[in-house]
Amino acid sequence: MNKALERVYGSHPVRAIMATRASDVRQVVILDGRTSKTHRSRRWTEYYLDLVRPTGVDPKLVTWQEFHRLTGLDANEKHQGICLFVEPRPTYDEGGLDRLAEARLVVALDQITNPQNLGTILRSSGFFGVDAVILLRDRAADISPEALRVASGGAEFVEIFRVTNLVRTLKALKDLGFWIYGLDERGSSTAGDTEFHPKAVLVVGAEGEGLRRLTKETCDFLVRIPGGRQGVESLNAAVATSIAIAEVKRRPPHGPLGDYKPVERPIEEE
Amino acid sequence: MNKALERVYGSHPVRAIMATRASDVRQVVILDGRTSKTHRSRRWTEYYLDLVRPTGVDPKLVTWQEFHRLTGLDANEKHQGICLFVEPRPTYDEGGLDRLAEARLVVALDQITNPQNLGTILRSSGFFGVDAVILLRDRAADISPEALRVASGGAEFVEIFRVTNLVRTLKALKDLGFWIYGLDERGSSTAGDTEFHPKAVLVVGAEGEGLRRLTKETCDFLVRIPGGRQGVESLNAAVATSIAIAEVKRRPPHGPLGDYKPVERPIEEE
Repeated sequence: MNKALERVYGSHPVRAIMATRASDVRQVVILDGRTSKTHRSRRWTEYYLDLVRPTGVDPKLVTWQEFHRLTGLDANEKHQGICLFVEPRPTYDEGGLDRLAEARLVVALDQITNPQNLGTILRSSGFFGVDAVILLRDRAADISPEALRVASGGAEFVEIFRVTNLVRTLKALKDLGFWIYGLDERGSSTAGDTEFHPKAVLVVGAEGEGLRRLTKETCDFLVRIPGGRQGVESLNAAVATSIAIAEVKRRPPHGPLGDYKPVERPIEEE
Repeated sequence: MNKALERVYGSHPVRAIMATRASDVRQVVILDGRTSKTHRSRRWTEYYLDLVRPTGVDPKLVTWQEFHRLTGLDANEKHQGICLFVEPRPTYDEGGLDRLAEARLVVALDQITNPQNLGTILRSSGFFGVDAVILLRDRAADISPEALRVASGGAEFVEIFRVTNLVRTLKALKDLGFWIYGLDERGSSTAGDTEFHPKAVLVVGAEGEGLRRLTKETCDFLVRIPGGRQGVESLNAAVATSIAIAEVKRRPPHGPLGDYKPVERPIEEE
């Protein structure tokens, strides 16, 4: 397998790729259930074959064993019998911030180090239509295969920036017309009572540590999620971020959000 | 170590125990930083000694090595130099549902199997003041040490029920005056547009599979969180649950929530 390609597996992430950039797919490996005795396996195989047709790539239909050999995956990974090898998506740096001139909602992560949290934030960002996620180049979790799996396709719908200096980045975003909202347990108003500007950046701090002082000082507003008690002062960082995104998107000027009507799939899935 | 005791470690969970049931603590093990060269270590040790005083238990102040030997923890676990051994909290079954006669908000989990998700839901439940969390006895993640660590103290503030039959349980809760709200991506109204009854049960389905048919039919209302697109149809189960809880608690009759003002601790922590 070409190391420069990104491995994407599981039904959700594969459908996300097909929805965004089918032409980037270079190889398709599908577990061959066509002659299986179970209706379910046959239907999934047919569904996948239909799904990947727009790639123009000839899919490899293989046995379970061959599937694991070709993909490097094992039975513990929720590959659901499909794996693509895809050109990696570009990520951007400070030099690319002008791309965000027309963006509405950006999430900036100040030192989120847990790949599960990063993946969950990418999933929620994709779900709610966040335009971009900004990470620190040096002090953040990587966009690892694990983070991408947890993101469950969400990473395909946001532009990802890796920056070296978050304060400088936030200032550049201010110059593009954004207002900066830091999530902070001591914030002066709740996310629910905040009227978010049509161009908003949500800044979220490290798990447990919150925003760094300079980051905090660069924010235009500090907002909090009400709740908590002695011993449970804070929410999980990905949960807090997701609740804040949902707050921004639940009412004008960012919402209310339209609904996506899920397409029918062969069976309900993991 | 007495096997019947529960091991609780890390600053958050320990403070949650001290806030709820200090008298259940049987042993206290603290990493001895009193003669450490770093101010930080000395302050943490003093802080912990003050914190556990109400237990009446004589703390063992020990070396790093001894700490790991006595607690069975290793450096990879975020114990932060403190570990308690505590009488386990009771959990309840269907027979105990009458305890919820005065409860306001209950979360019922239909087959949540991932311990991370369970822990995160317990944390959010503790943060937002959910009264009880109901799990399936046979088809759910266990209240494992991992789930409790992820819950970060949150499990101490909710009553936990393990039931064999969720439909029967939901019907018993209806008899206690509760209205049942199922979280479902095809729900007829959004959580934001729903007026939740003062006594509400939120029912959340398995990761990816959603509510089972009979569970769904037992719900009075099906509500959805708006958003999603081809490839990212759903949120992480713990995130979806937390957003729904936040929706219930953000306005009357359940909210708005008062804020807890975090106490100052020696330093910011993980």
